[in-house]
Amino acid sequence: PFDNQPIAKPTNRRYVPPTSQRKSRTVSEFLKEINWLHASLLLTTPVIAVYGMMSVSLTWKTFVWTFIYYHMTGMGITVGYHRLYSHRSYKATLPIRILLLLFGAGAIEGSCRWWSRDHRAHHRYTDTDKDPYSAHSGFFWSHFGWLMMKQDPSKIGRSNIEDLNADKWVMWQHRNYLPIAFFFGFVFPTLVAGLGWDDWMGGYFYAGVLRLVTVHHSTFFVNSLAHFIGDTPYDDNHSPKDSIITAILTFGEGYHNFHHEFPTDYRNAYSTFGYDPSKWAIKLMELLGLVYDLNTFSKNEIQKGMIQMRQKNVEQLKQVIHWGTAIESLPEMTEEDFDAQCKQGKKYIIIDSIVLDVETFIDEHPGGVSYIKMGLGKDATKMFRGEVYGHSNAANNLISQFRIARFISKEKNN
Amino acid sequence: PFDNQPIAKPTNRRYVPPTSQRKSRTVSEFLKEINWLHASLLLTTPVIAVYGMMSVSLTWKTFVWTFIYYHMTGMGITVGYHRLYSHRSYKATLPIRILLLLFGAGAIEGSCRWWSRDHRAHHRYTDTDKDPYSAHSGFFWSHFGWLMMKQDPSKIGRSNIEDLNADKWVMWQHRNYLPIAFFFGFVFPTLVAGLGWDDWMGGYFYAGVLRLVTVHHSTFFVNSLAHFIGDTPYDDNHSPKDSIITAILTFGEGYHNFHHEFPTDYRNAYSTFGYDPSKWAIKLMELLGLVYDLNTFSKNEIQKGMIQMRQKNVEQLKQVIHWGTAIESLPEMTEEDFDAQCKQGKKYIIIDSIVLDVETFIDEHPGGVSYIKMGLGKDATKMFRGEVYGHSNAANNLISQFRIARFISKEKNN
Ligand code: HEM
Ligand code: HEM
Ligand SMILES: [Fe+2]
Ligand SMILES: [Fe+2]
Ligand SMILES: [Fe+2]
Ligand SMILES: [Fe+2]
Repeated sequence: PFDNQPIAKPTNRRYVPPTSQRKSRTVSEFLKEINWLHASLLLTTPVIAVYGMMSVSLTWKTFVWTFIYYHMTGMGITVGYHRLYSHRSYKATLPIRILLLLFGAGAIEGSCRWWSRDHRAHHRYTDTDKDPYSAHSGFFWSHFGWLMMKQDPSKIGRSNIEDLNADKWVMWQHRNYLPIAFFFGFVFPTLVAGLGWDDWMGGYFYAGVLRLVTVHHSTFFVNSLAHFIGDTPYDDNHSPKDSIITAILTFGEGYHNFHHEFPTDYRNAYSTFGYDPSKWAIKLMELLGLVYDLNTFSKNEIQKGMIQMRQKNVEQLKQVIHWGTAIESLPEMTEEDFDAQCKQGKKYIIIDSIVLDVETFIDEHPGGVSYIKMGLGKDATKMFRGEVYGHSNAANNLISQFRIARFISKEKNN
Repeated sequence: PFDNQPIAKPTNRRYVPPTSQRKSRTVSEFLKEINWLHASLLLTTPVIAVYGMMSVSLTWKTFVWTFIYYHMTGMGITVGYHRLYSHRSYKATLPIRILLLLFGAGAIEGSCRWWSRDHRAHHRYTDTDKDPYSAHSGFFWSHFGWLMMKQDPSKIGRSNIEDLNADKWVMWQHRNYLPIAFFFGFVFPTLVAGLGWDDWMGGYFYAGVLRLVTVHHSTFFVNSLAHFIGDTPYDDNHSPKDSIITAILTFGEGYHNFHHEFPTDYRNAYSTFGYDPSKWAIKLMELLGLVYDLNTFSKNEIQKGMIQMRQKNVEQLKQVIHWGTAIESLPEMTEEDFDAQCKQGKKYIIIDSIVLDVETFIDEHPGGVSYIKMGLGKDATKMFRGEVYGHSNAANNLISQFRIARFISKEKNN
């Protein structure tokens, strides 16, 4: 039944030439293609963050708040934009949906509708030139190069977002995106620290700007690092990879090989011991009755892919091994012939009706010269398989190297 | 060609009932069977060592000497008795052979001839009742229980030691074993510390007795622990196992699954990163010109076993997976039939000439309801394989769960 399961050979994956081979642009063409809004946001925030770190000292309370708000807005993206809205891997009650949309906006990565549209196209056209952040265009491009250039809508793959268009809160966030993003990106974190413990500057520079820069790059790693480093336990036809390092940097989105195979599973880390705080958050909210209908692929389906990959690895390893001359292609040797050759001093031995020439091996025989000599000129199958010694699997493999002929006994011959 | 390689099914492995099921002995019978020399050595030395540790303080120099002499005598066993004499895995110049016999004797584990005879029987009859320290008789027995009882020569398997009988230094050590063992076990370590830095008591208790106890149990672990904990990367028909923990405790003899498959390989740790100081010592001596003809099994032979084990694991995993109804056992469905059923509202879809009933899956389809509906009542093979979306390997696996019939098109039908 296994052979009924072909390893998918997707036909919509196109060859994308490496960046260096693509037609070059003039400087002015290049400048025209830059998305100045994105580029200035992405390039100035790190500078402001460094300036803040040098001029404002970090208090303990602000540190904790920055850390918390880093997770709140980061998971706004991973738990909200990604697992809930792009992949509908679970269902959420209204308050949670609104909170995820608000804090997700605080990560300043575009509206949920826009983000999910691109993300679905990324899944549908992974690694092709219709993928908005194809890993085949390089690490830098998939990380945030793609954000700093204008998108060519005619090139990017289409994806279906009917469900999001029909969701009034998603549309509300989309229409009012700029003020919401500005408020939750900068104002809210500053207000909390300012009203809370009178650290307005710390709130702005640390919980606001520095936190924003780290959330940006954490989540960008899902598109870059997660397609570059790690293992491919479920499928190695495409670039997504599983890596604990990426997982730690991305609130648990580092099991990306799993995720591209099972995108509507609310988990990214399939293993209980994998680092996936986004999964834990969803599970916790389920226990609190805030979300429901968590979607998982069955163990059976998940293991299928894992087993096929292992099988594939074993098959590949088998190719590089020399298994000895195939039995079918060995010449025949009659009993008379065998006896005559042995009399002339040939060091032949028969195991499993195959004539082995052990000349070179006698002195190396791990069981000693005298034992192997007992078998010379004879059918030593029984000695070899237990009468004298039940040889290891390794020894059973080794004999194939000495094959020279198929033995034809007198009985058979007549 | 792989199928020509049968996994060995050794025929000389006999069933050994667990100790608890064997016929019980009376106390006086039991006492008669005790090997009092061994038992008193093995049971009193730890007591003496503890007494010494409580009454004599350990100096820094004696500590270093104890550590060194622990390795010298321990490796006298592993590098000498075991890898050189029992398995002839390399050749050594006379000075090295003599040193190994002397320091090996300092581990007080019997003469090299006696030790190797039992060890070869252990390899030949692993896990059977002819194995002098069969792991099937339990951890305690294989560790040192077997040493504390009289050996029944009629029961222990025979092994060939012609080569050792012909080696005059091995025979010299065998004949003069008791004085040599006493000298190198207790006198020599005491003399070094006494004459060297005037610590006679420390030399005796630490480098002598405590060192002896630790060397004993380190090397005994090769027969016990190495048959109980770890992995079986090369063969799982027998008890030997690979474990880094055992390796650390036994001067590198912890890769015991490898060792039982490739006993005449001078290495136990096949991997460069494995912990095997005995291997390193042999390699170092080779560089110094003191030993030569280091024997190894080829990478090809070693990988064969490894690949077969992985293959076996994959096959076992495959057994527990549900791969969907076998195509051969599906009923046939004609095109007319298919069309009629679809008209009545059945949610059928054709992929690879198989009719799938996706009723339960439509709402769960990760690509959205509208896409999968495009395929209903049609042959969706091309849509599924790339025209609309090149589905993952996971999706290709999943469809087998929905199989209900083999599709017979009109063309074929006529
Ligand atoms: C082409 C023929 C042979 C090959 C390739 C071969 C290979 C080996 C190998 C690799 C071992 C190491 C232990 C193991 O892997 O199980 C071994 C051990 C042994 N062999 Fe053979 N052998 C051959 C023929 C024979 C014959 C014909 C006999 C007996 C009549 C024999 C008797 C033994 C014994 C007794 C041992 C165990 C020695 C020990 O572990 O101390 N072998 N042989
Ligand atoms: C029994 C039939 C089908 C099954 C089991 C199935 C299963 C899946 C699965 C598991 C995915 C997740 C991504 C992946 O694994 O590659 C997926 C995505 C998708 N499917 Fe299907 N599918 C089926 C039929 C169809 C059909 C007929 C179409 C189109 C006409 C379609 C269009 C899509 C699209 C466009 C996606 C990508 C959505 C995204 O990743 O955002 N599927 N499908
Ligand atoms: Fe991805
Ligand atoms: Fe995703
Ligand atoms: Fe062993
Ligand atoms: Fe051994």
